[in-house]
Amino acid sequence: MTRYESVAAVLRERIEHGLYRPGDRLPSIRAVCQEMDVGISTAQEAYRQLMDAALIESRPKSGYFVLPGYAPSVLPSASRPAQRPLDVSQWDQVLELIATRRDDDRLQLGRGVPNLECATLKPLSKILGGLHRRTELNGFNYDTLIGSPELRQQVAKLAVASNCLLHPDDILITTGCQEALAIALRILTQPGDVVAVDSPSFYGTLQILKANGLKALEIPTDPQTGISLEALELALEQWPIRAIQITPTFNNPLGYTLPAERKRALVQLAQRFDVAIIEDDIYGDLAYAQPRPPTVKSFDDDGRVLLCSGFSKTLGPGFRVGWLAPGRYRDQALHMKYVSTGASATLPQRAVAEFIAKGHFDRHLRAVIRQYQRQRDVMIGWVQRYFPPGTGISYPQGGFLLWVELPAAVDCVRLNDRLAEHRLHVAPGALFSASGKFRQCLRLNYAFTLTPDIEDAVRRVGALAGAMVEEALQPLE
Amino acid sequence: MTRYESVAAVLRERIEHGLYRPGDRLPSIRAVCQEMDVGISTAQEAYRQLMDAALIESRPKSGYFVLPGYAPSVLPSASRPAQRPLDVSQWDQVLELIATRRDDDRLQLGRGVPNLECATLKPLSKILGGLHRRTELNGFNYDTLIGSPELRQQVAKLAVASNCLLHPDDILITTGCQEALAIALRILTQPGDVVAVDSPSFYGTLQILKANGLKALEIPTDPQTGISLEALELALEQWPIRAIQITPTFNNPLGYTLPAERKRALVQLAQRFDVAIIEDDIYGDLAYAQPRPPTVKSFDDDGRVLLCSGFSKTLGPGFRVGWLAPGRYRDQALHMKYVSTGASATLPQRAVAEFIAKGHFDRHLRAVIRQYQRQRDVMIGWVQRYFPPGTGISYPQGGFLLWVELPAAVDCVRLNDRLAEHRLHVAPGALFSASGKFRQCLRLNYAFTLTPDIEDAVRRVGALAGAMVEEALQPLE
Repeated sequence: MTRYESVAAVLRERIEHGLYRPGDRLPSIRAVCQEMDVGISTAQEAYRQLMDAALIESRPKSGYFVLPGYAPSVLPSASRPAQRPLDVSQWDQVLELIATRRDDDRLQLGRGVPNLECATLKPLSKILGGLHRRTELNGFNYDTLIGSPELRQQVAKLAVASNCLLHPDDILITTGCQEALAIALRILTQPGDVVAVDSPSFYGTLQILKANGLKALEIPTDPQTGISLEALELALEQWPIRAIQITPTFNNPLGYTLPAERKRALVQLAQRFDVAIIEDDIYGDLAYAQPRPPTVKSFDDDGRVLLCSGFSKTLGPGFRVGWLAPGRYRDQALHMKYVSTGASATLPQRAVAEFIAKGHFDRHLRAVIRQYQRQRDVMIGWVQRYFPPGTGISYPQGGFLLWVELPAAVDCVRLNDRLAEHRLHVAPGALFSASGKFRQCLRLNYAFTLTPDIEDAVRRVGALAGAMVEEALQPLE
Repeated sequence: MTRYESVAAVLRERIEHGLYRPGDRLPSIRAVCQEMDVGISTAQEAYRQLMDAALIESRPKSGYFVLPGYAPSVLPSASRPAQRPLDVSQWDQVLELIATRRDDDRLQLGRGVPNLECATLKPLSKILGGLHRRTELNGFNYDTLIGSPELRQQVAKLAVASNCLLHPDDILITTGCQEALAIALRILTQPGDVVAVDSPSFYGTLQILKANGLKALEIPTDPQTGISLEALELALEQWPIRAIQITPTFNNPLGYTLPAERKRALVQLAQRFDVAIIEDDIYGDLAYAQPRPPTVKSFDDDGRVLLCSGFSKTLGPGFRVGWLAPGRYRDQALHMKYVSTGASATLPQRAVAEFIAKGHFDRHLRAVIRQYQRQRDVMIGWVQRYFPPGTGISYPQGGFLLWVELPAAVDCVRLNDRLAEHRLHVAPGALFSASGKFRQCLRLNYAFTLTPDIEDAVRRVGALAGAMVEEALQPLE
């Protein structure tokens, strides 16, 4: 975090805790410089950031004021899903989100795609362009089934930041994190089995359950502390759960990070009931503060955690380079990988390995993390400004996804129907549940370069949602 | 086929039918020129080809003679596998064949990898090198789930050669043909189900059955006419078969092509029993004669054939670009594709599409087909020369794989143990069966550039196999 970001964070916290209230005048630039021992330009930059985030305004010749309309942001509510295993549906909605035609000109505000326009990605293009000339690499041939040794070595090195000591041979390269998740679920379950999931839960995983005839048991989840271990324990006592599938770090979509101590407790719980944990860490490297949070896998001392990750959220999903650390399930995972797709594509693996080895990945991560953190605040500001009162907003410490809980009158699938006329689309909350929860929720992406067009799009979403709230208040004729 | 190849083919047929017998003198160059109305250099080239194939020899000042040791090549026997559904095993052997480490210096004589050194592949490297600069392609982002429109259009055009009229939207791009096969089997079956397969059968498919808890019902198969429709019909009456999985064109490993009329009859049989057909056509484009044989899919009038193919055997397996034409199962296939790996990798799809669109694929196919046809005859010649008497050899009309049936005394898994000392490895026949058949069979690849080193390797395999035959003849002490 840069100096001005630290200053802005302190001021933001004071506003959010009500120390300065809507309409209040903030300390002068000079006062901030004195209190926090920083230069004038740093203090000015901090105030500019708070203005970008729509928390404060500057009044000529008067100073800085908390926006009169500002209300401290409220988190979404904790989920209370139905306490029994359910079949997953919602495929049509997922298809609408992900299988859009290339000539579809809708602006997708909710898809989980990172910013692909960063200058720090350019060396990757250059590496890709150079690989084809190095015929000794033989990029046309199969790589080894387990994955390129160079890439596995780099992944093992990166995993150290999450407190994981993995040997390169503990890692299996997959066709995106999606294949890692699919392999993990396929080797652990049979059709009809029950899998415990956080709730809301990534729709890609829920759809794996659907495809394999598995039932989802959605566990209540808090937007600050994550999956309820108490509810999970009760569920483990009550149901024959074959696996626990969670995204415990920068959760997609709810944004929380399970505290380290609760990650440890989760492993102990899984040990007590002898059940495997499938950990989705795809957003874990995008932590706004260093060191990044540890993985659940880092507390795993008997190989029961299958850690799934990849480079789709850091470098780009088009490469389809993911990985799985399958723990004690290595042999089964290797077999399932073989039958599912064979060895992973050769050239993307080599390109990613070289990008990391040359230090480009670290540089890119640092740049993109700063951008996402800044843009989180901007996007939260827009939602506060344009969405109807009573809207809850997540406050993620990493990644680039925001979870927005609208007033109960708003059905986000219907909202999407209205947005279609404006060539806009959000990820409706219903995607993230097997039990039809979260109808009034939606997911927004703030990885885009946040142009006035995006602000205008968010404004329209808010206005249409607001209209739905008002319609619900009209007396029936 | 060039002129000299036609001449050689005629002479070869006469030799194989016993018109000229071992030790016989062949017609002079001049006589051949007169009879077949060709020039001297064409006739000479034809004789050279027959010498390369180890059918004839040239004796100075005497002319050309059928090799005294030449015995017309015998086809492998028709398979008679156990007539009940079986679980698949043999994973360890597959793993040894495919998951070799990159530092493994064994010469793999049996793996299904095409020749990657052809000059006609060079434009593909160039296209790959150029793609990264065209940022409008946005190769870092997802392509559409169903696959790149440009590639699907090219695949639809190519399919016309196999008599298939497919719309680009009938085609789903997959991560290699392996994913197409896996998707097809997963959407058609539940664990415990029975799948009818040709026998011997591609080990990659058999391993999908194993991973999904399916049972293989191996149907007797003839090395000339393919899977027995009569035995299949009996099996369909007797067992609850959920799908028929076959490789009917340039079968891997047995080499036959199911005649077009039998392909049509197969579809009718499947209709009568209302069962789906999974057709693996991965070698189908590598036909030595034009037009290439029609697919089973081309006779499908109610969408029950799921056609699986790709570019691993024509361009290189490292791209992992395959495709599935799922017929009436399109919706299920799309869902299974999504949960398995999401969209396929973007850049390899675009590169392959451009390679085809610019005419490079046709040129490459023509070149490589000529090479494989020539090398088939050379490899058959080596096997005839170096392998023990009584060895049966397939005679494929496309692709680059030879199936060799040794005398019963030879166990090819044990043969591989002995070959390991020589840093050699063949694909043992047991891989291709769920019922432990084909222990005395092996698969050889003739796509390599056939250097003296390869000849020496084939010679060693033959010698070690011969030693095993002789050991079996020794009286026990």
